[in-house]
Amino acid sequence: MDGAVGHRFEIAKSCTRSGARAGLITTPRGSLPTPLFLPVGSQGTVKALTPDDLKAIGVKMVLANTYHLYLRPGIGVVESLGGLHRFMSWESPVLTDSGGYQVFSLAPLRRIDDEGVHFRSHIDGSEHFFTPENVIQFQERLGGEIAMPLDECPPYGGDQALIRDAMERTHRWAERSLRCHRRVDQDLYGIVQGGVFPELRRESAASLTSLGFSGYAIGGLSLGEPKKVTLAVAEETLSFLPKERPRYLMGVGSPEDLFECVARGVDIFDSALPTRTARNGALFTTLGRHNIHNACYKNMDEAVDTDCDCYTCRGFSVAYLHHLFKSKELLAYRLATIHNLSFIIRLMERIRQAIIDDSFVALRDSFLASYRTTDEETRLLQKQKWLDRSSKTPGEGNSTKNASVIT
Amino acid sequence: MDGAVGHRFEIAKSCTRSGARAGLITTPRGSLPTPLFLPVGSQGTVKALTPDDLKAIGVKMVLANTYHLYLRPGIGVVESLGGLHRFMSWESPVLTDSGGYQVFSLAPLRRIDDEGVHFRSHIDGSEHFFTPENVIQFQERLGGEIAMPLDECPPYGGDQALIRDAMERTHRWAERSLRCHRRVDQDLYGIVQGGVFPELRRESAASLTSLGFSGYAIGGLSLGEPKKVTLAVAEETLSFLPKERPRYLMGVGSPEDLFECVARGVDIFDSALPTRTARNGALFTTLGRHNIHNACYKNMDEAVDTDCDCYTCRGFSVAYLHHLFKSKELLAYRLATIHNLSFIIRLMERIRQAIIDDSFVALRDSFLASYRTTDEETRLLQKQKWLDRSSKTPGEGNSTKNASVIT
Repeated sequence: MDGAVGHRFEIAKSCTRSGARAGLITTPRGSLPTPLFLPVGSQGTVKALTPDDLKAIGVKMVLANTYHLYLRPGIGVVESLGGLHRFMSWESPVLTDSGGYQVFSLAPLRRIDDEGVHFRSHIDGSEHFFTPENVIQFQERLGGEIAMPLDECPPYGGDQALIRDAMERTHRWAERSLRCHRRVDQDLYGIVQGGVFPELRRESAASLTSLGFSGYAIGGLSLGEPKKVTLAVAEETLSFLPKERPRYLMGVGSPEDLFECVARGVDIFDSALPTRTARNGALFTTLGRHNIHNACYKNMDEAVDTDCDCYTCRGFSVAYLHHLFKSKELLAYRLATIHNLSFIIRLMERIRQAIIDDSFVALRDSFLASYRTTDEETRLLQKQKWLDRSSKTPGEGNSTKNASVIT
Repeated sequence: MDGAVGHRFEIAKSCTRSGARAGLITTPRGSLPTPLFLPVGSQGTVKALTPDDLKAIGVKMVLANTYHLYLRPGIGVVESLGGLHRFMSWESPVLTDSGGYQVFSLAPLRRIDDEGVHFRSHIDGSEHFFTPENVIQFQERLGGEIAMPLDECPPYGGDQALIRDAMERTHRWAERSLRCHRRVDQDLYGIVQGGVFPELRRESAASLTSLGFSGYAIGGLSLGEPKKVTLAVAEETLSFLPKERPRYLMGVGSPEDLFECVARGVDIFDSALPTRTARNGALFTTLGRHNIHNACYKNMDEAVDTDCDCYTCRGFSVAYLHHLFKSKELLAYRLATIHNLSFIIRLMERIRQAIIDDSFVALRDSFLASYRTTDEETRLLQKQKWLDRSSKTPGEGNSTKNASVIT
């Protein structure tokens, strides 16, 4: 099958020295150059930014979340206000995630059977029931350009039998999702599951491609497994996905991972990492991530990244950002988010151009040679901390501990 | 005395039916039409807004606070980064408050004598000493267009002898401030004290005008006294201030008070009220303040104020703002602040035009006829709550309880 009405995917150029490809996704709300990064706007807002900020940064598409919007403000509210684009005042394309991941990161509160998943709201404890069918309907009413089917997303570390069960249910749900999907102007992607088991991934890819989706997502990764495993499983899975459809790796977004996964043939990414780390004061530069709270930045009269042309780097010094973070000023989170997101969007633009110029491998090698990544142990600790926190408040979470809002 | 080098104040038009006047303050960084409202940017940022937001709203001058900037990041840091304007990336004029009010709202931690005031930092408990002289030097180094002398600002409710002592010390400090003030391109205003006692206010005005400042501020009001008292004391004080110099009423900023005080001859106002109430979800409309958390706004597909041309009202519905506030999304505070500040700035522009057209009294009467003010009891309760909170964290406060920052 091809994409929905008004949708198209073309590969403009394939890298001769890696699996990277530069493409173009056409949607009724505009074209999306790939490789493409989607910032996360779970609740109908990319945290701390306006739609104008996103446009200025160069964001082409945002991800919103069915679980969050269903619970608050409610699908009916968004629909009655003219759909998600009008609700959030964002005219460009939107991808809605199904909420499967969010429901399953609430494990203690859910009960799953073949029909669907019962769960309690993290907001008020009320009971709800998601099925493959109603989740598709919710997304049709939200009106995003790309929808995702409900999937079962077990945590990292489960044994193979458990992961197989979840995968097989995901396949049955995928088929039901496809069958009930009515909106002809909306793409529906399949989500490959199978944990870290290569044979399950292969089986899942085969099963989903036989159903024929508009694009294919790789779910169930970036859940606390070692980075090597993420890359190996992504690579294995990608080799079984059709080359002519978009491939979307869910939840991946560090600069080094973007390079590695583009090299393996991924077209679309989403991740809360750039925006979440920004709010924690970890700012991207070509040399690595820097913690703006560090006392060494108190007097630094320079932009965060002297090569960066974002609003933050054009107007403000590291010392000013340091001061805003130390003072817990709301402007801190916004300026930091603008910078980190600009850094990633700019990186994706450079990656795409390099693929077209057939210099992608050189760009990757030179970038990774100077970019100091967070070491594996620290990274996994941070990830676990975040997963623990988000199991209480799914998605991007709702900690109420850090800003100076009320006076 | 006249203003500093490059400074000038001219009255363009005086109202024939009230004490209102429309004027123009010239500074080396641009002209300021009066009556003028200054948003509060205590720590070198108007909470939640960028300098670009402020410009788009029409803000001409912001207030920053010596107490806050002295403690964090430190006067030396701001100076080494090129002064306050460059530090905060704000090219237009700045008024720096002396920090007197902030030191005295920390009452349990301060010790005062004629030399100056010893106090402890609300951030880390460290000991500090402000004198009239060093506070002037700090402000010269910060580099604002208008500086304020250190004053003693006792809380509302003290007996007359106590208020007299504080006032007389304020006069002695005012004289020392004037004597040590060196920066010829910076205006220095005097601050009238005297509590709610008319005879003290008269004495204070006489004493300060005999010293000859570039402008005159009325301090020690809006500290929890009934609104009638605020207005009566302001009126009494204004009648003793020279007509040809700017008059600045500190800490007043509700729409109804702006009208009443402009009518009595005030030229400059500052207040955290519009921005603070915005972050609490209380939004200004021509009918009064509305609490956006109210369930009745869940589905409202309209701008907050249909006559408002601010970014928030142009792009977003009441329902979306309601959703952002319920979800504690950072964007809530920014969009609300943009609206409330726009409302006040637009109001001041209309007031100024009405004075020029000699229709100010009609504008005031028609505005106040439809604008429902917060009733006195609720207002005083809210004020007390805020004063209690800010006695722990002075100025605009630093509560860390309300935003969704970290994930």
